[in-house]
Amino acid sequence: MSPVKLLIAQGGGPTAVINQSLVGAVLAARAFPNLQAVYGARHGVRGVLHEDFVDLTGEDINHLERVAATPASALGSTRDKPDEAYCLQMLEVIKAHGITHFLYIGGNDSSDTVRILMEQAARSGHELAGLHIPKTIDNDLMGNDHTPGFPSAAKFVAQAFAGADLYNAALPGVYVAVVMGRHAGFLTAASALARQGVDDGPHLIYLPERALDIDRFLADVKAVHERLGRCVVAVSEGVHDTSGVPLISQLAQRRGAGVERDAHGNVQLSGTGALADLLCEEIKARLGIKRVRGDTFGYLQRSFLGCVSDVDAREARDVGAVAVRLALKHGATGSVAVRRDSTVPGYVSEYALQPLEAVAAKTRVMEDAFINAAGNDVTPAFVDYLRPLLGSALPQAERLRGRAVAKRLKPQE
Amino acid sequence: MSPVKLLIAQGGGPTAVINQSLVGAVLAARAFPNLQAVYGARHGVRGVLHEDFVDLTGEDINHLERVAATPASALGSTRDKPDEAYCLQMLEVIKAHGITHFLYIGGNDSSDTVRILMEQAARSGHELAGLHIPKTIDNDLMGNDHTPGFPSAAKFVAQAFAGADLYNAALPGVYVAVVMGRHAGFLTAASALARQGVDDGPHLIYLPERALDIDRFLADVKAVHERLGRCVVAVSEGVHDTSGVPLISQLAQRRGAGVERDAHGNVQLSGTGALADLLCEEIKARLGIKRVRGDTFGYLQRSFLGCVSDVDAREARDVGAVAVRLALKHGATGSVAVRRDSTVPGYVSEYALQPLEAVAAKTRVMEDAFINAAGNDVTPAFVDYLRPLLGSALPQAERLRGRAVAKRLKPQE
Repeated sequence: MSPVKLLIAQGGGPTAVINQSLVGAVLAARAFPNLQAVYGARHGVRGVLHEDFVDLTGEDINHLERVAATPASALGSTRDKPDEAYCLQMLEVIKAHGITHFLYIGGNDSSDTVRILMEQAARSGHELAGLHIPKTIDNDLMGNDHTPGFPSAAKFVAQAFAGADLYNAALPGVYVAVVMGRHAGFLTAASALARQGVDDGPHLIYLPERALDIDRFLADVKAVHERLGRCVVAVSEGVHDTSGVPLISQLAQRRGAGVERDAHGNVQLSGTGALADLLCEEIKARLGIKRVRGDTFGYLQRSFLGCVSDVDAREARDVGAVAVRLALKHGATGSVAVRRDSTVPGYVSEYALQPLEAVAAKTRVMEDAFINAAGNDVTPAFVDYLRPLLGSALPQAERLRGRAVAKRLKPQE
Repeated sequence: MSPVKLLIAQGGGPTAVINQSLVGAVLAARAFPNLQAVYGARHGVRGVLHEDFVDLTGEDINHLERVAATPASALGSTRDKPDEAYCLQMLEVIKAHGITHFLYIGGNDSSDTVRILMEQAARSGHELAGLHIPKTIDNDLMGNDHTPGFPSAAKFVAQAFAGADLYNAALPGVYVAVVMGRHAGFLTAASALARQGVDDGPHLIYLPERALDIDRFLADVKAVHERLGRCVVAVSEGVHDTSGVPLISQLAQRRGAGVERDAHGNVQLSGTGALADLLCEEIKARLGIKRVRGDTFGYLQRSFLGCVSDVDAREARDVGAVAVRLALKHGATGSVAVRRDSTVPGYVSEYALQPLEAVAAKTRVMEDAFINAAGNDVTPAFVDYLRPLLGSALPQAERLRGRAVAKRLKPQE
């Protein structure tokens, strides 16, 4: 067996379990006797460009295990999306250090980076195996049953809505929370897992997969509020009307306010509480409901320390190790995928290798079977899909029962 | 012993452990052989007014234990602040049902309600013992070392900032999170407990106990960002300038935007993401930093299911039981207080009875000893004060170490 030198990097938004994949890969690599070194690149592809590497070949395993249990990319991440020129520079560094295998933990942009890099390597005749290890809380990677990182973020969203619903039941009114998801509604849909009993919230769930106009939204809220005296609503940041105009743009225009745009000219959906605030203003103004509160889950759903699905942690560890074995044993190039074995009862996950092209720069959205006909909720099929992924430690809530005491005076209004 | 009939209610904002106090009181009452009944009033004083009671005298203990472990007022809560007329009506209901003891779990407004009710009872010659059981995540009750509910909310804030800081280290920029606290900065200050190592965030903490102007804020952020390449900031929703004008009003005026006011004409600080958004806009516009993100913890810090300090849960249980014993054994009226026994090493809490007037409608703010001289951080004394309250299960984070690999090419910029 010829000596191997592995380089691992982490790209895109951090997750609660992305370091499980890092440590899974490092430890799996260390089991190969022909391993010369395993390096980590600081801040993703940027670290490759700048030769900013740390040597993890002999790093203490206890330290690595504690890193694995810590959320957010331990190597640092980047939002850089390398083009061919960028990849060519990376390749120079990879050659200079004698790297034989490159592993990139990230989303669909990261898999596209591996794809471009592999093309450049092939063209220049440098022998390099490139593996993409999936992660993203958006759950929007093609060819995966789900992606590592999503279940833990989904668990956060479910626990947040379970708590918010109990609060809303104690002090009734309308509560609207905006959850991440520009194109894919999986994370917002996870709010459905907060429900334990009849009439538990969220009572309405709006996803970017279905067009939404504000009048329809208000009619839905009004109906629930009239029925229950309260209403809890989950809204994806990316909800838009039939012509694709984001709801936040429509609402801002009505109110004469501007919206923020990012460097690419896209409306900035994250990092601002504007959508939740605008929806609350509409509900107050047009439905005449007084107690209306809005939240935007923002970075909490991405980074909260201490909310991890054990199933997610295990699978994130696995995909790192699987990638290394595919690379070092089989010289494979491609993207590791998480699949569900539906031939056996219960929940069993398995791993596969798919071509980089199957994942790169593509976006999976929610299946039709996961969204109800009215477009304001998920289906039982979605709940069945997500429940096993949340793992073993989902807190349960109990509503107080108790026999009503007979009144002795007339009710006073 | 004459027969007793206990009525318990929950008022104000729910907490993670307010049901521990409810169940603590119910179970303690059931140990008294002369107990005739223990009732819960639905939605606080409003349930008393409307005779909306549930009988908890024989309720299954296993059910009650699961309710105790569930956040948010299980009996329902209210924002009603009864005046004398309201209390007089409550008293009629209390008389009609032969209630001998009234326990109200709540903040300083709730203790004021008990005070007024007791005055009315004394005036009308009805024998009634009234106990106030403390709870509030703001930690702003006089005569208490801390209040039940605060440690769990503080734990949420610490875990949120620990995660946000790891995220910020992975993708550097400026992160600003707005935390609850109109007058008292305790909950915002709890962000300091997120720090585990040197240069961990939050790097700046702004509290309503100290005046803040925007130029000073920007200069602080600039200095941290220049030193570390990143900056994590905790801001109380109630921060204001030397003349008491809330920062949110100043910023909104600058930008030509309005602020929302509640029914009492107070600027609405909660339930809106405006302050975080405005601060981020200022940082981008005036410091020229590109990656700036803001969050508002909103209802998550008040209601998240699954973030409880075990010390808090135990003490919340205790204050409920202590109130019942004070009421039933000693016929006491007053407010139960949580104290810290500073005569022994380690952390030991104890309980005392204080007059309702000592707590009612008063607000405790952070001691000077807890705030640094520059007014942009807490002191080690505050960290020492809070650490034991967070309990045993505070997740730890581990930053990746690893020997840097020598560069083989010149760093490319």
